[in-house]
Amino acid sequence: MTNQSPFLAACRGEEPAHTPVWFMRQAGRSLPEYRAARGTGSILEAIGQPEIAAEVTLQPVRRYGVDAAILFSDIVVPVAAIGFGIDVVPGRGPVAEQPFTSRADLERLRPLEPEVDIPHVIETVKILVNELDPVSTPLIGFAGAPFTVASYLVEGGPSRTFSKVKALMHRDPELWADLCDVLADLAISFITAQVEAGAQALQLFDSWAGALSPHEYERFALPSTKKVMSTLEGLRVPRILFGVGTGEILSSMATSGADVVGVDWRVPLDVATKRIGDHPLQGNLDPAICLAGAEIAGNEARDVLRRGAHAPGHIFNLGHGVLPETDPDVLKAIVDLVHAEGRDIATRELSA
Amino acid sequence: MTNQSPFLAACRGEEPAHTPVWFMRQAGRSLPEYRAARGTGSILEAIGQPEIAAEVTLQPVRRYGVDAAILFSDIVVPVAAIGFGIDVVPGRGPVAEQPFTSRADLERLRPLEPEVDIPHVIETVKILVNELDPVSTPLIGFAGAPFTVASYLVEGGPSRTFSKVKALMHRDPELWADLCDVLADLAISFITAQVEAGAQALQLFDSWAGALSPHEYERFALPSTKKVMSTLEGLRVPRILFGVGTGEILSSMATSGADVVGVDWRVPLDVATKRIGDHPLQGNLDPAICLAGAEIAGNEARDVLRRGAHAPGHIFNLGHGVLPETDPDVLKAIVDLVHAEGRDIATRELSA
Repeated sequence: MTNQSPFLAACRGEEPAHTPVWFMRQAGRSLPEYRAARGTGSILEAIGQPEIAAEVTLQPVRRYGVDAAILFSDIVVPVAAIGFGIDVVPGRGPVAEQPFTSRADLERLRPLEPEVDIPHVIETVKILVNELDPVSTPLIGFAGAPFTVASYLVEGGPSRTFSKVKALMHRDPELWADLCDVLADLAISFITAQVEAGAQALQLFDSWAGALSPHEYERFALPSTKKVMSTLEGLRVPRILFGVGTGEILSSMATSGADVVGVDWRVPLDVATKRIGDHPLQGNLDPAICLAGAEIAGNEARDVLRRGAHAPGHIFNLGHGVLPETDPDVLKAIVDLVHAEGRDIATRELSA
Repeated sequence: MTNQSPFLAACRGEEPAHTPVWFMRQAGRSLPEYRAARGTGSILEAIGQPEIAAEVTLQPVRRYGVDAAILFSDIVVPVAAIGFGIDVVPGRGPVAEQPFTSRADLERLRPLEPEVDIPHVIETVKILVNELDPVSTPLIGFAGAPFTVASYLVEGGPSRTFSKVKALMHRDPELWADLCDVLADLAISFITAQVEAGAQALQLFDSWAGALSPHEYERFALPSTKKVMSTLEGLRVPRILFGVGTGEILSSMATSGADVVGVDWRVPLDVATKRIGDHPLQGNLDPAICLAGAEIAGNEARDVLRRGAHAPGHIFNLGHGVLPETDPDVLKAIVDLVHAEGRDIATRELSA
């Protein structure tokens, strides 16, 4: 038993005391205490109140005993903070008042000054770092990757087809590169502020990168992601890169500079390891399985643990965010199962 | 030059006179003549009027010179026709008044009697077979695969997470199997009626199968798809199976009994061929690329033709349906390009 965080050890490819587990969107609408603390205001309002944001970050740590906390925030916080004009509409997602359509819109994206623009985020991180045990539950900071943030700015809201953002990148690759460069700088400033305030790891959410073809990903999304990752290398905290539907681009994502690659439920982790090579993996229980009850979800979790054993490090997680209708008791049962059985399942799998 | 349909030849792995091309949703909102013919009624109303349904089926044939027509219809037509209570809501998709939740709901799904329940569909096919040249533009009939149709019945409408349908299949695999069996029989009856009336090929749309993990696909979707495919083998027309986001399940789809596998834009066709083996492929230009204009879309189409050359047959198509905001002139330019350059690009690629 070392005095090292199991989560951070697994991110570094070192041997953790037990298989670490946390859940994307573990703080959120599935928790009754979250709904009570949040009240009826918008999510950006809640993020703007450090006491509330810290409280909802801590709720899943208390309830589940997960191995990491993730800052309660949103990928559009930096662009909202510099006044682009974007809000998170309940039941819909980020919506931009005036979408990004032309070069003139670049002027609406000035650099982030964390102390001025997001003092509440820095304050939230400081509260959390005081409250959390850095060994049992390090804090993960995060930002959106340029492509995914740009998709909201250009589409004006959530999209199924990403037709506007794809048209822009193909029609005006220079403008697209400039937009991604600005958004990379925003992500860098946003995450750096979180890590300097005490966050011990970072995740870059390129949630919708899987909507791109492999060729488009390499040309239009990977370069700015690489910039973020290489710049943040100096922070010396583990860097996780995640997206959904990324089966065809996993090998590209592995070249981004990320230490850990997050995988959705579509790609079994043993298959993902073959594509990714020498990187620890994070994932990948289907969040929808949690709605089938603890027994079925538990059996699927065992399968995830078995397949994850082949990676040079495995952080158990869902393949995407917790669904709002999830029963918290099911997530609690999964945490207990991963802690109790994770190492044994991996050992058995590797000796088989 | 043979007197054989290029589309049917490619489906059979034979040498076509030119590379065939058609577009999923080629009849639809992107065409001004479609909007004029359809008027303001619901899509199910338009499908119920043979003269209108035949007219909108023919519109893209006239305008684009595609190598196949596809019946103007919808995957929920059979369940709507037997009175399940489902409509297609504009801008949203199929919505069920009372979703499928329990075994008692199986009684709401009686067998289809085509002559009684869908005489208008049979009539539409007969009009079309009279109008269309069977060599230049064979008619494709279609149905929804059991999983994808079931997803609408169980979720009650379009879903991003498929959480209800996944919970049902895991919690009650017997009920799920019974539901899929009933839906397989509906697909079989629906397609058989179309082929007996003159359709010369069939496509089974398992559009959302890519939301399943490979294990879930094998266990919960493939068996009923196999039943449909094997039963329809006796019709002796080419059988195409299509879904989006199917990278991880392509090899399973190839075992379904389908002759041709449709591929979305995420998997380059040369990669798809490695997973699928000895089947002709259909696809896979990203529909969003068409919004970037004819020149950019044309260059991407050439890349699709190059990669498709490695399959034992290639039917050019989009990777999903035509987007409503598509400029028809771009699609026309793509058809001309595929016809003019397709064979040469494939020949060059294979001799390289």
